[in-house]
Amino acid sequence: MANFKSKWSFTVEWGHCDPAGIVFNPRFFEYFDWGTWLLFQAALGVKPHELGKTYGIMGIPLVDAGAKFVGPARFGDVVELTSWVSEFRRSSFDVTHELVVNGALAVEGKETRVWATQDAVDRTKIKPLPIPPDVTARFQS
Amino acid sequence: MANFKSKWSFTVEWGHCDPAGIVFNPRFFEYFDWGTWLLFQAALGVKPHELGKTYGIMGIPLVDAGAKFVGPARFGDVVELTSWVSEFRRSSFDVTHELVVNGALAVEGKETRVWATQDAVDRTKIKPLPIPPDVTARFQS
Amino acid sequence: MANFKSKWSFTVEWGHCDPAGIVFNPRFFEYFDWGTWLLFQAALGVKPHELGKTYGIMGIPLVDAGAKFVGPARFGDVVELTSWVSEFRRSSFDVTHELVVNGALAVEGKETRVWATQDAVDRTKIKPLPIPPDVTARFQS
Amino acid sequence: MANFKSKWSFTVEWGHCDPAGIVFNPRFFEYFDWGTWLLFQAALGVKPHELGKTYGIMGIPLVDAGAKFVGPARFGDVVELTSWVSEFRRSSFDVTHELVVNGALAVEGKETRVWATQDAVDRTKIKPLPIPPDVTARFQS
Repeated sequence: MANFKSKWSFTVEWGHCDPAGIVFNPRFFEYFDWGTWLLFQAALGVKPHELGKTYGIMGIPLVDAGAKFVGPARFGDVVELTSWVSEFRRSSFDVTHELVVNGALAVEGKETRVWATQDAVDRTKIKPLPIPPDVTARFQS
Repeated sequence: MANFKSKWSFTVEWGHCDPAGIVFNPRFFEYFDWGTWLLFQAALGVKPHELGKTYGIMGIPLVDAGAKFVGPARFGDVVELTSWVSEFRRSSFDVTHELVVNGALAVEGKETRVWATQDAVDRTKIKPLPIPPDVTARFQS
Repeated sequence: MANFKSKWSFTVEWGHCDPAGIVFNPRFFEYFDWGTWLLFQAALGVKPHELGKTYGIMGIPLVDAGAKFVGPARFGDVVELTSWVSEFRRSSFDVTHELVVNGALAVEGKETRVWATQDAVDRTKIKPLPIPPDVTARFQS
Repeated sequence: MANFKSKWSFTVEWGHCDPAGIVFNPRFFEYFDWGTWLLFQAALGVKPHELGKTYGIMGIPLVDAGAKFVGPARFGDVVELTSWVSEFRRSSFDVTHELVVNGALAVEGKETRVWATQDAVDRTKIKPLPIPPDVTARFQS
């Protein structure tokens, strides 16, 4: 059973690039963040800003993020970002992101996120919740 | 009676610059935003994140912003940002920002902000409040 | 003779918004910058990263930018950005940007840019060039 | 022989934070990037924008980045970022970043970077160079 994948294509903007003419690394983590929201929208049919309300969570906060930079992405490059949940656990999950430029892998990213609500006692803390089976089921395609 | 001015000095970071090697213009508006928070901290003795609570406002939302780019600021340049309230009105005020690099004016910015709370009926709207006289008094030096 | 206008529609991302839940103002200037590149691509049929090479310029550096913030744009809002050259002068021009959310004007922006090359003697300086008539002609529709 | 460490203290800005009121994750990678430049400046006595020229390299491009988000950093929080080279290899090295808020570890970051020049044939590619011993020596304290 394969994982549901979402694809997002965009052009690298002038302001995403640094004096070396390539995308400044934190921008890739912006791409990944938005790629995850778009993945959840595609899988669940819920718009990003309605995800919390729909499922009674505060969101899907990030606890781990990483990227391997294999090749450059430059101003004007058309980027294909493919995102999928590579693993679901009880209350956390991994999202893998592949960013392809001109047919070649440029960046590989991975995020670990938590299905979470606010802690009832200390609202500044997050409390993991079990991911509902009907959510995980939507990520099988 | 002169205006109270605050100064903030920092170095232009690699990631602030675009492929032309100069600061990407939206970053200047980040500098102005933070310059305003620092100005209010210097004048009022209140930390940025405590400003709302201290004065019973939601904040000082921006309604107008502008900048003239006179000269470049480059990676590694040491920037002097001087900020002051150039005019107080009943419930709004103008902040002027001068950004100097190597002794020469590089950018001149201006923000108009409102002393505001949330509208009681429609909480997505802002409601201007009169700026307290003890606040405006602190900006005279 | 009306001005050529380009439209770009996008969704406000989570990372564009500040703790007040609305777009952080410098992001609007990112939108304007990219809106201008897209306008030139639409009018001239030249991709952003090929504009300089195609016309023998270093680019279209910004010398003035401003925005009026009329209403908020929030996470998940679908934004329509309309951009056009509101005035061409000999070697500079103004771009007006209208950003509409839910059918209402949220932000009005204006940029002044220069059609420029690098100064032959001091390569850190820009030298304005006359805008070619075949360029300005393409912005009439 | 301990590693040379550099420390940088700053306050979390309003515009660094997202609608959850905490630092948006890509900003941490901005902090790490600047932390690395500051570390090299502290160890080598060379300003960031002069590093390439001083050592005959194009820079220290990033090939891998990662972060664990242990606790939140909020608007107004005073952050202590400690950065050090945790391992030098022939032409690449790891930088570890520890970001502490209110005395507790909030984020742990790691970057892998390359001591590199441009490839002589294909200038869009990077070519790793051996890190000079007098450079690595400066990172022992």
